[in-house]
Amino acid sequence: MRGEFDLIARYFAPLSENAPGAESLKNDAALLRPSHEAGLVVTADMMVAGVHFLPEDPPGLIGRKLLRVNLSDLAAMGAEPRGYLLTVALPAAIEEAWVEAFAAGLAEDQREFGVALHGGDTVATPGPLTLSLTAFGDAFQGRVLARSTARAGDLVYVSGTIGDGALGLKALRGELPGLSEIDRAALAARYRLPEPRLALGRALVTGGLATAAIDVSDGLAADLGHIAETSGLAAEIEAGGVPLSKAARAALDADPDLVPAILSGGDDYELLFTAAPDSADDLAGLARSLDLSITRIGSMTEGRGITVFDEARREIALPRGGWAHF
Amino acid sequence: MRGEFDLIARYFAPLSENAPGAESLKNDAALLRPSHEAGLVVTADMMVAGVHFLPEDPPGLIGRKLLRVNLSDLAAMGAEPRGYLLTVALPAAIEEAWVEAFAAGLAEDQREFGVALHGGDTVATPGPLTLSLTAFGDAFQGRVLARSTARAGDLVYVSGTIGDGALGLKALRGELPGLSEIDRAALAARYRLPEPRLALGRALVTGGLATAAIDVSDGLAADLGHIAETSGLAAEIEAGGVPLSKAARAALDADPDLVPAILSGGDDYELLFTAAPDSADDLAGLARSLDLSITRIGSMTEGRGITVFDEARREIALPRGGWAHF
Repeated sequence: MRGEFDLIARYFAPLSENAPGAESLKNDAALLRPSHEAGLVVTADMMVAGVHFLPEDPPGLIGRKLLRVNLSDLAAMGAEPRGYLLTVALPAAIEEAWVEAFAAGLAEDQREFGVALHGGDTVATPGPLTLSLTAFGDAFQGRVLARSTARAGDLVYVSGTIGDGALGLKALRGELPGLSEIDRAALAARYRLPEPRLALGRALVTGGLATAAIDVSDGLAADLGHIAETSGLAAEIEAGGVPLSKAARAALDADPDLVPAILSGGDDYELLFTAAPDSADDLAGLARSLDLSITRIGSMTEGRGITVFDEARREIALPRGGWAHF
Repeated sequence: MRGEFDLIARYFAPLSENAPGAESLKNDAALLRPSHEAGLVVTADMMVAGVHFLPEDPPGLIGRKLLRVNLSDLAAMGAEPRGYLLTVALPAAIEEAWVEAFAAGLAEDQREFGVALHGGDTVATPGPLTLSLTAFGDAFQGRVLARSTARAGDLVYVSGTIGDGALGLKALRGELPGLSEIDRAALAARYRLPEPRLALGRALVTGGLATAAIDVSDGLAADLGHIAETSGLAAEIEAGGVPLSKAARAALDADPDLVPAILSGGDDYELLFTAAPDSADDLAGLARSLDLSITRIGSMTEGRGITVFDEARREIALPRGGWAHF
């Protein structure tokens, strides 16, 4: 394979074309000119081959997922994505075609989300391929959504459908053999290529509609737990109200024991947020205008902890789990 | 060892105390309020155990070096450090005491350099400990130093002393057995704990004294090559003028074959910059006020490539090498 400087010049420098302050990655650092917005939001995530993705996954999808999980963090703050930095530890066995396809995936999502590469580092590793991405975005007039600001009596909402990420990983591992090819492919696609809910996050912060927000990366129950804990409250989820895709519904019909995987599996990258009860009509209008379902799944109460009820209002026990982000 | 959320709460959240927008790392991302300065400078570097540091190195020094190599990139742009994000891939064998000492090292340098942790991620890895850090700083009135702006006829200067980083690694590997204990320790300390030349970078940009700048991370010759190539020029170095520490001088006296290691070894994190000939007096004054040596080592000329001359003006051949950063 080419040397590292050549890899950078050939595959990574073109990704910085729309970042004037990055000067084709030729400096030690990149200058980020201030925008009209008043404040920058920053976040970082790391992914390791064999832990967060399968080494044989298509490299373009790995690059796009890495970028999207970070954009999802920006969405949860209501920020507008602007750019990113990327560090890559490459094992000797990685071939140049892998790097080329990885960069092509990033280029595709750069166009989709209007972001550009601003810098980074590429190094050799004796271990597995390891990727780290720092994304930054503009806060609208300095305002952001936070986790810690839910209030007792708020309702809990989630965008899109829940459980597809965890079921998609199961499908890729061959653990859902009874499911149709189409359903398995739909779930796998959701696992491999999450959709950051940027328009929703932006609308929630500009409209003042959400009292607190987070993206569903650790799992629905764990992430609602983060909102509850930092807000000093308890929360309850009505499992019967959690929105499922057609494919997830089919998987659940075939195996009712999948409920805990759906509620605590993570990797959905939907927005989970709290809102005052009188925001219900505005949220319904927002869902229509974004063509994205927004579903009420529970409420915030005084106390501590997360309780999940089934349709007969019996408590459902969930395993602890999920990835830790700081 | 504790779970990842507990590690974050115990060791990493305290590092964000002076970053109000990070809210103790409790959100998906951190809000960075705009400063009075007009523009943000961003950079990222990655380090892998067994490649960039020895697994048995003191964890506090590993954390401080990771932060300092990034601050050195900010220094090379003339930016004022403000904060950083950190992602960490931890092997199962790492003990909690390692994480504690690593965080303590970061805390020490946070105080020294006035920066705070703004976010990140901690994940598990089946491979070696892998660390990635993104640093950001304020550009003074939107002005930065760049690599690509040297002019033919400029003189080439370097701060401090050169070669200590490469010789320090050799000393730690037991490759300099003839050297005194004191000299070996001095070189090892320079390798393990570089000194980012932030005050110099800031003075060069505010005083308009440098035409181009870079930090010496890949090696003196390779880094001057980056300035020459991006500026469309050639450069020459007079090896006899390259400033050496007392310990490096002792190593070179014992083994004259160390010249290439000194000139191309990297890891010095001094500033290498170009300046117009009529800036010499101002630079001498700046060196005095910063109590930091600034030494003329060569000049920029028309053409391509880097040539190194010995004191008899014979060309010295250097190996290619160094780390690639983008």
